[in-house]
Amino acid sequence: MKKINVTVWNEYGDDQKEKAVKDIYPHGMHITIAEFLNKDESIIAKTAVMQDAEHGLKEEVLADTDVLIWWGHMLHDNVEDYVVNRVTDHVRRGMGIIFLHSAHKSKPFMQLLGTSGSLGWREAGERARIWTCEPSHPIAQGVPNQFAVENEETYSEPFGIPQPLETVFISWFSGGNVFRSGVTFQRENGRIFYFQSGHETYPVYHNEHVQKIITNSVKWAAPVIKVNSLDCPNIQQLEKI
Amino acid sequence: MKKINVTVWNEYGDDQKEKAVKDIYPHGMHITIAEFLNKDESIIAKTAVMQDAEHGLKEEVLADTDVLIWWGHMLHDNVEDYVVNRVTDHVRRGMGIIFLHSAHKSKPFMQLLGTSGSLGWREAGERARIWTCEPSHPIAQGVPNQFAVENEETYSEPFGIPQPLETVFISWFSGGNVFRSGVTFQRENGRIFYFQSGHETYPVYHNEHVQKIITNSVKWAAPVIKVNSLDCPNIQQLEKI
Amino acid sequence: MKKINVTVWNEYGDDQKEKAVKDIYPHGMHITIAEFLNKDESIIAKTAVMQDAEHGLKEEVLADTDVLIWWGHMLHDNVEDYVVNRVTDHVRRGMGIIFLHSAHKSKPFMQLLGTSGSLGWREAGERARIWTCEPSHPIAQGVPNQFAVENEETYSEPFGIPQPLETVFISWFSGGNVFRSGVTFQRENGRIFYFQSGHETYPVYHNEHVQKIITNSVKWAAPVIKVNSLDCPNIQQLEKI
Amino acid sequence: MKKINVTVWNEYGDDQKEKAVKDIYPHGMHITIAEFLNKDESIIAKTAVMQDAEHGLKEEVLADTDVLIWWGHMLHDNVEDYVVNRVTDHVRRGMGIIFLHSAHKSKPFMQLLGTSGSLGWREAGERARIWTCEPSHPIAQGVPNQFAVENEETYSEPFGIPQPLETVFISWFSGGNVFRSGVTFQRENGRIFYFQSGHETYPVYHNEHVQKIITNSVKWAAPVIKVNSLDCPNIQQLEKI
Repeated sequence: MKKINVTVWNEYGDDQKEKAVKDIYPHGMHITIAEFLNKDESIIAKTAVMQDAEHGLKEEVLADTDVLIWWGHMLHDNVEDYVVNRVTDHVRRGMGIIFLHSAHKSKPFMQLLGTSGSLGWREAGERARIWTCEPSHPIAQGVPNQFAVENEETYSEPFGIPQPLETVFISWFSGGNVFRSGVTFQRENGRIFYFQSGHETYPVYHNEHVQKIITNSVKWAAPVIKVNSLDCPNIQQLEKI
Repeated sequence: MKKINVTVWNEYGDDQKEKAVKDIYPHGMHITIAEFLNKDESIIAKTAVMQDAEHGLKEEVLADTDVLIWWGHMLHDNVEDYVVNRVTDHVRRGMGIIFLHSAHKSKPFMQLLGTSGSLGWREAGERARIWTCEPSHPIAQGVPNQFAVENEETYSEPFGIPQPLETVFISWFSGGNVFRSGVTFQRENGRIFYFQSGHETYPVYHNEHVQKIITNSVKWAAPVIKVNSLDCPNIQQLEKI
Repeated sequence: MKKINVTVWNEYGDDQKEKAVKDIYPHGMHITIAEFLNKDESIIAKTAVMQDAEHGLKEEVLADTDVLIWWGHMLHDNVEDYVVNRVTDHVRRGMGIIFLHSAHKSKPFMQLLGTSGSLGWREAGERARIWTCEPSHPIAQGVPNQFAVENEETYSEPFGIPQPLETVFISWFSGGNVFRSGVTFQRENGRIFYFQSGHETYPVYHNEHVQKIITNSVKWAAPVIKVNSLDCPNIQQLEKI
Repeated sequence: MKKINVTVWNEYGDDQKEKAVKDIYPHGMHITIAEFLNKDESIIAKTAVMQDAEHGLKEEVLADTDVLIWWGHMLHDNVEDYVVNRVTDHVRRGMGIIFLHSAHKSKPFMQLLGTSGSLGWREAGERARIWTCEPSHPIAQGVPNQFAVENEETYSEPFGIPQPLETVFISWFSGGNVFRSGVTFQRENGRIFYFQSGHETYPVYHNEHVQKIITNSVKWAAPVIKVNSLDCPNIQQLEKI
């Protein structure tokens, strides 16, 4: 069986290299995510960070990527537009993309969805309960009906997104808020999954259920086909109408 | 301006005539709902109950109804199938329908949506917070970003419905649950809104925001057109192809 | 790999046993469909017809069916309601279902979609061109951008269905009509595909592209999970909120 | 009743000032469109063209626009990005937008939908038949079941758009093609309608049904609310959880 090539991208800013974060993710969240993905024998996960040449997302990297995972927070504006355009073009041509946590304000997210990605938020270390709305969705397989993340950044509705194709998860926060925390979209040939859990100062990506969800989402988002171009062909009339 | 004719239907079983409920809704919830709707000058609301002949939903009643509001809980199975078929036929031909609270297991709800309407529940008088996900939806106009209902029956995901056309409201419950509490659907010419709040032993229909939501939903669900039939016409070939 | 168990159901009325049809489908369309499905090594297809006991759809048959294919036309009303309820219950619990051609007026189709399934039609042997709208959909893999069926019953918009989850195919008819001929839906755990091509007096099910589409749709509709029941559990409050 | 302020925008390139087009639209298509819109007493339509300062779409113009109509073809790339961003920001905050014909490749269309807008095309003066799929949609009111446009540029599936909220119209072309010619979307507070008919060398905008559709779409897309900003507020914990 052909394996799924994943590239885990992280802005990996200075704030992620401070002690509070390093204690949880010594080599960065992208390494932790790639590590648990690589435990699945159908996945080959590599990593890339913003500081790499062309943000680590050269044409040949994306051409060889089935699913791209995107983590960004403080440095969204520093991502070069030509790289963003390259990423979204690949999604439209078939590459899957998983947006994690604060990637709701990343350039590729907004460019693909067409909305602002706005939401309410606070950092209060509240308990989050992630509820499954679609138990038969491939992304929800092996995930309990609900599970808790003891400390999480609170995100709140209204969430500035188009109506999702599927609302797979909704989160409850102990401070009184709710949030559509796992939603799917499709943009031409590319599948998109947004998943909210994952603030950098909490060990969320060590949670077994979060790992299961992200692993499932990679398999779900792997391309059915990748097309070479999305031009507007001048087509001839059919010979026999 | 043509007024919107509303019929508020209630199963109005014996349990609703006991003291606990009568203290809140002396003449039944249908009367309370019709009363606040009639405060809106664009609406004329009448009522019908299960004990009426043909459940109060004779052909001429439905023919004269723009939007039907449905409240049922304990007596779903007692609703005659021929009345259910008449109701759903009118919806498909253009009549709007609003399903309240436990109507998620009513025959018309399941017949129109095609799903079981299953959900988790408990009666624990928990606080519910109703969050607006779509602030620009007509049903959300004049409704705050979120509001609390101090005591409500808890409903929980997963909710057995098709992907909604729009998820307008999601509710948070103090016991740890979430629920898609305000969702829209369309079935041919008829618009459908389900709204969760409204357990009979709590004074939910006296809440100003709940009243606003139901009033808005009536205006949103009023038919654009009502068609006479939904047959399958044998059509001729176009004269000039 | 676990194989996909398919049951191909046909009303198989007297009209299908007349010469015009028998010349094309000597043993009935269900046999032809099962035969081409069985050429795919991941599928095991059996058949059932209306004349069998319980229409050939006993509980144990459905319990062992991953995907049910439904062909009916003249005898929709003769299908017993208890069998229809059993079929739709299995769909909601995870069984996939493929509705072919005139099954748009079958009881299970209307019960699952909640709409009338109405459309315009004529029998004029017109050429149909089936266009692919979603080239990356699993059901469209290996199917050309468009292909012709030389003679087909003409179906025409408006088609009385809810907005599909995905519009995979749209058909053009030489007499001037269009029709959403390949559409997907989901009802709780069950996936639904409707495909229009396949009038009994034309050899449509011998067309290689039609065979490819139906084979693909079986794989797409195979259940992710099958659940035992869709009741409404009385749930306890979470121990630690 | 508050009137709906419409701005009809046209790239109005040199090609539109040549005889073939001027014979049909002496002062440009934008003037023709504004003229028929202004016949409706609920609408006040003004115009703007690319050659105006800031393309005629200064902040104060958009702030005063309820619905923007966009016609562009040859000069998509010449539209300044800061104007595009201003337009799409207004849509997200509530302004409606109607994209006509070749605007499927305009910058605002692609930025709002997130897809390429690709399609097949040929200029062969074929007959188009526009079929109504959703007879009860507000945009379809007063429009016949189907109508012909005698000569139109042919557009063909696959059309590179997300699954529409509603597919209101599908077109049949005499050369054998089909196209989803009238589709709706929503992006946060703003409603979007794309309508295909309207090649500049054919008198399509003089067709009564086309005029009806565009007029209806303006009323449908008029904002329910316009919000001031779509930021991400840092929200406090609720006082009483």
